[in-house]
Amino acid sequence: MQFASDNRAGVAPEILDAIAAEASTFGGAYAEDEASERLDARFAEVFERDVRVFPVLTGTAANSLALACCCDPWGAVVCHTEAHIFVDECGAPEFFGGGLRIVPIEGDGYKLTAAGLTEVLDAVAADRTDVHRVPLQAFSITNLSEMGRAYSPAETAALCDTAHAHGLATHLDGARFANAVVGTGSTPADLTWRSGIDVMSFGATKNGALAAEAVVFFDTSLAGTFERRRKRAGQLFSKMRFVSIQLLASLAGDRWLDTARHANEQARALAEGLSEAPGVASCGAPDGNELFVLVEPATAEAWERAGAQFYGTPSGDRVMVRLVTSFATTDEHVSTFLKVAQHRQAEDKS
Amino acid sequence: MQFASDNRAGVAPEILDAIAAEASTFGGAYAEDEASERLDARFAEVFERDVRVFPVLTGTAANSLALACCCDPWGAVVCHTEAHIFVDECGAPEFFGGGLRIVPIEGDGYKLTAAGLTEVLDAVAADRTDVHRVPLQAFSITNLSEMGRAYSPAETAALCDTAHAHGLATHLDGARFANAVVGTGSTPADLTWRSGIDVMSFGATKNGALAAEAVVFFDTSLAGTFERRRKRAGQLFSKMRFVSIQLLASLAGDRWLDTARHANEQARALAEGLSEAPGVASCGAPDGNELFVLVEPATAEAWERAGAQFYGTPSGDRVMVRLVTSFATTDEHVSTFLKVAQHRQAEDKS
Amino acid sequence: MQFASDNRAGVAPEILDAIAAEASTFGGAYAEDEASERLDARFAEVFERDVRVFPVLTGTAANSLALACCCDPWGAVVCHTEAHIFVDECGAPEFFGGGLRIVPIEGDGYKLTAAGLTEVLDAVAADRTDVHRVPLQAFSITNLSEMGRAYSPAETAALCDTAHAHGLATHLDGARFANAVVGTGSTPADLTWRSGIDVMSFGATKNGALAAEAVVFFDTSLAGTFERRRKRAGQLFSKMRFVSIQLLASLAGDRWLDTARHANEQARALAEGLSEAPGVASCGAPDGNELFVLVEPATAEAWERAGAQFYGTPSGDRVMVRLVTSFATTDEHVSTFLKVAQHRQAEDKS
Amino acid sequence: MQFASDNRAGVAPEILDAIAAEASTFGGAYAEDEASERLDARFAEVFERDVRVFPVLTGTAANSLALACCCDPWGAVVCHTEAHIFVDECGAPEFFGGGLRIVPIEGDGYKLTAAGLTEVLDAVAADRTDVHRVPLQAFSITNLSEMGRAYSPAETAALCDTAHAHGLATHLDGARFANAVVGTGSTPADLTWRSGIDVMSFGATKNGALAAEAVVFFDTSLAGTFERRRKRAGQLFSKMRFVSIQLLASLAGDRWLDTARHANEQARALAEGLSEAPGVASCGAPDGNELFVLVEPATAEAWERAGAQFYGTPSGDRVMVRLVTSFATTDEHVSTFLKVAQHRQAEDKS
Repeated sequence: MQFASDNRAGVAPEILDAIAAEASTFGGAYAEDEASERLDARFAEVFERDVRVFPVLTGTAANSLALACCCDPWGAVVCHTEAHIFVDECGAPEFFGGGLRIVPIEGDGYKLTAAGLTEVLDAVAADRTDVHRVPLQAFSITNLSEMGRAYSPAETAALCDTAHAHGLATHLDGARFANAVVGTGSTPADLTWRSGIDVMSFGATKNGALAAEAVVFFDTSLAGTFERRRKRAGQLFSKMRFVSIQLLASLAGDRWLDTARHANEQARALAEGLSEAPGVASCGAPDGNELFVLVEPATAEAWERAGAQFYGTPSGDRVMVRLVTSFATTDEHVSTFLKVAQHRQAEDKS
Repeated sequence: MQFASDNRAGVAPEILDAIAAEASTFGGAYAEDEASERLDARFAEVFERDVRVFPVLTGTAANSLALACCCDPWGAVVCHTEAHIFVDECGAPEFFGGGLRIVPIEGDGYKLTAAGLTEVLDAVAADRTDVHRVPLQAFSITNLSEMGRAYSPAETAALCDTAHAHGLATHLDGARFANAVVGTGSTPADLTWRSGIDVMSFGATKNGALAAEAVVFFDTSLAGTFERRRKRAGQLFSKMRFVSIQLLASLAGDRWLDTARHANEQARALAEGLSEAPGVASCGAPDGNELFVLVEPATAEAWERAGAQFYGTPSGDRVMVRLVTSFATTDEHVSTFLKVAQHRQAEDKS
Repeated sequence: MQFASDNRAGVAPEILDAIAAEASTFGGAYAEDEASERLDARFAEVFERDVRVFPVLTGTAANSLALACCCDPWGAVVCHTEAHIFVDECGAPEFFGGGLRIVPIEGDGYKLTAAGLTEVLDAVAADRTDVHRVPLQAFSITNLSEMGRAYSPAETAALCDTAHAHGLATHLDGARFANAVVGTGSTPADLTWRSGIDVMSFGATKNGALAAEAVVFFDTSLAGTFERRRKRAGQLFSKMRFVSIQLLASLAGDRWLDTARHANEQARALAEGLSEAPGVASCGAPDGNELFVLVEPATAEAWERAGAQFYGTPSGDRVMVRLVTSFATTDEHVSTFLKVAQHRQAEDKS
Repeated sequence: MQFASDNRAGVAPEILDAIAAEASTFGGAYAEDEASERLDARFAEVFERDVRVFPVLTGTAANSLALACCCDPWGAVVCHTEAHIFVDECGAPEFFGGGLRIVPIEGDGYKLTAAGLTEVLDAVAADRTDVHRVPLQAFSITNLSEMGRAYSPAETAALCDTAHAHGLATHLDGARFANAVVGTGSTPADLTWRSGIDVMSFGATKNGALAAEAVVFFDTSLAGTFERRRKRAGQLFSKMRFVSIQLLASLAGDRWLDTARHANEQARALAEGLSEAPGVASCGAPDGNELFVLVEPATAEAWERAGAQFYGTPSGDRVMVRLVTSFATTDEHVSTFLKVAQHRQAEDKS
């Protein structure tokens, strides 16, 4: 019962098949191959507009390289206090960005709000040209957020409008973008450039790829230095065609949405099952493939003893449990876990 | 007839099998998995001593992270003028190393010599403590060199002795290390730490892996900051177990040497076949899987028209052709190419 | 009536005399001169213990270079949200520190508290060895603080004890250290190493020097890389003897405390004079040479019209006015300003 | 007899007077003062065209900040193997430039030639758009060169034409620019922008200032990021007016050329006097204020014993002695030294 993260899952069969088919062939190196050269066109279809797409190997690199294109070394990127780029990357954005600063702000569901963004912008607005200050130059949102919440197109647009009005570039960390697309029922275009997103990190690894991420520029004027940065950062992989074919295999026939839909449904199944367990307090129905619930520490421990894997964080005298599903989460995983959870409740009552 | 690079090949069947077997499982993330945790022990067997091994995704990252552990931002790394780290990485060592300097020196076969190293060391020896100068702090050799030449244990030891006598750390870029092991008939230990190498980049990607490199520390005192550097550089991959199982699959049963031996033999077959072609001047029998020959421009063009892929560099009025073989180079590739080469000669004579 | 900053003042006569005396001589370059070589011994007397002292040209450089010696590029420095290093240096600590992070926390009077420090340390304590997180590695306090408040030896010790218990290095930004020494009546030793400070930036420029700052290491084990960093950062000035003689001239006969005492007394005179002006709300008696008061916007404007120079910051519907005195603030400056302020009040009443 | 360097001299009287006059005044901080604001206009007169001028504190900073504006972190700057920026700055250009690379090439008199520049450009010309290579983006020449040689306008123009034809920016390190102006009899304009220089480091410190350097942009499109870079690098000095008044005092009435002329004449007097000393081999008549001669080691030692200070570098079995004069070199220094040198010769003969 692996609910610790969607990166604990393996590789989706169709993506593995694509890798296997490519394995016995020769091909171009360093992204000069047929698959890599098809990416721009394929993503253009998915996003309904011209884009520039650059495959990379990890989400850390995707986010950090994208932000380095949006922000000078003496500038700052606004994000949520719990954003992955701020708390989980050991300072990778600062490294790739030549010493840029991250300015974290609060927001429910680990989401930025236009009001929150306005507040921090107003606080430094007079200082944009003051050479002594670090100017805000970009924001980054994560959709799904690190709390599993989706931004709607309207929420995204409100943020981007505010940002653009102040000259900031807008970045979307889409490690779980497919889950957000399915969860909101919006199109990829509506969740991104139509709402004002300039550049995104498009994640496939958590959605069934072995290793495949991409930086997608909607505002292609930001992309000028990307290729140098990618090479210099050790992300222009020699056998890049194996990354690109994963991306293409995932996008083929909207399979990327199918795998995400499966994960989202399993998360909803977990949420529904747990809603009937009296010792489990919901933190809200999942927007995607992440479910957060509050339980007693003893409950969390019992779940772990029963073989469930997940992350728990102390929250007052309870534990905030995060359950993440993936393309690989089976009905059996869900039902077994729910039995444990219900059994636990029974035990508690006895 | 793909001889442009060993990175144009696909994935060796045994490594693909290992990936496929892992694909349907769940596992730990960020190198906290069973396979990754077995690496130290497995490499210790291969190298006949305790080591610290860190998997990464690309050779650029392996080299650059290793060097960053050997050299301060205000220090310098000595390497050959044609070393990959100097001419093919868009400044990646400088980036990962916080602005370190690379000091390139000459040497036959793209190999450093102890005499050459001594010369540059003597030139700056009086300056090692001079705060105005950039102190030499490490050297890096590539074995196989970028000219396909192997360093023997004795040559390596002569360099390392010189380096250590001046306080330099010693790094080996082993992108084609397996080919050097096979080519020299030496043990991995003799080619590395027994000859004084402190840290190496161990490459598996060119030798049949999809994406698998590792930094191997023999002098583990240099490894203290590696894990922070790797994370911060976007190289602590979430599904790292897929990298580690490639390394383990390659090392299993000395398969890594079998694939390298196959490649080396194909290079020798090419060399032998071309030695009988009068318009082709040999640059020496191959030590590994890279063969360099000099031909007329018209010959190189004819080979390309016939479907051969390779890199050619102008060398006076001739062209230096590099032919690289791999685990995937078949006897048919070789014989077809040799037929072209011999046919070409016949044509030339007619 | 120049109260905008103590850096608006010129050069104290004794320091100018020292410069003039040196001007007609030849001397060693790059801090290899008689004056520079006397600094360690002279500061050792002032601080009652062995120290390592390195002159530099600006406070920005002093702070940033000191912090770079205390914190890895992947580490973080805790300071107040209003600390100069965080809000007024355009990211200089991040630049000199290779991309380190600054973690700002709140505190009255722009001062850190041990409780506040403990809170942020506790929040990340479990993460000190987590390679995904940015570890806290140092704190920096400013004494006088940017709000003109002094840290007592006891307050400093409480902070340093907490920091050292968690493995953090401790830095003091002493741009106005002389004012803090005079204001607290403590010895330089008590305010620094006896309370646990590892390294400080010792500022003389605001206290009457033309251009003279120094980094003073009490924990000399942190100083190992300083000289390389200083040179590389363009702060190993060729005519450094002119910096060192300013430091020596300032310290001679405790003149540095005399100039600071004068400035502090002028600030107190301003405070006393303004306390009798009904439209002026005090933010507390000054600990040093900075006075903060709250006034109506119209009052601030009237003061400016009358020729007073100062910084004002909106604070609700009032303006927080900062008045800074220096060695060069004359009794006449003070009395003229107080007349304006009292006249203003009279006007307001009429 | 101080001939070690012009940075061993003190401060020229007129510059000291300007400092003294400013010392008793208040003024704006951080280059927002009357003197700093006059720099653009004053330099425009000197250079006969609009320029942007930014004062800084050290030559290291001037050169490194200027180059950072000309070259990406992944680019390279071509200079002479003996250029100050390459051999005497502990990697400062790499630090300020975010890891840029310096490509050193040879040339007589420590001067670049258009032929030498063409050669290195041709070698990498095919690679300018190759993302694997470090593109050449700028060159830097020093006028006077580190061997005391002047570039004529024609030589400068030949270099700049070549550079611009390949898209490189052109930088002049003018630490001893005044000496070059006087030595060549050219105008400042002819030696710089009229010959194609885009940006220069204008040095006053070696020419009698206490601490005053400036970066002068002729191609103002390169200056966009300069102010942020300067602040972030700790070079936006609070009491910058004291730097600016030194620059203005030096330029007033062409005093900067008078002090340089004096230094040049003293160097020529040394050269003439030494030409009559048989054991002293000239390395050419000085173009500016640096004279190089070859002598026996015993001769160099005798000079030192007699109180002469200079730098000597082994050159075969002789010593290359560098004698540098300055505004402060008196006739007596010269005559005393020449007596020693002639006496030495007499001794040698006896």
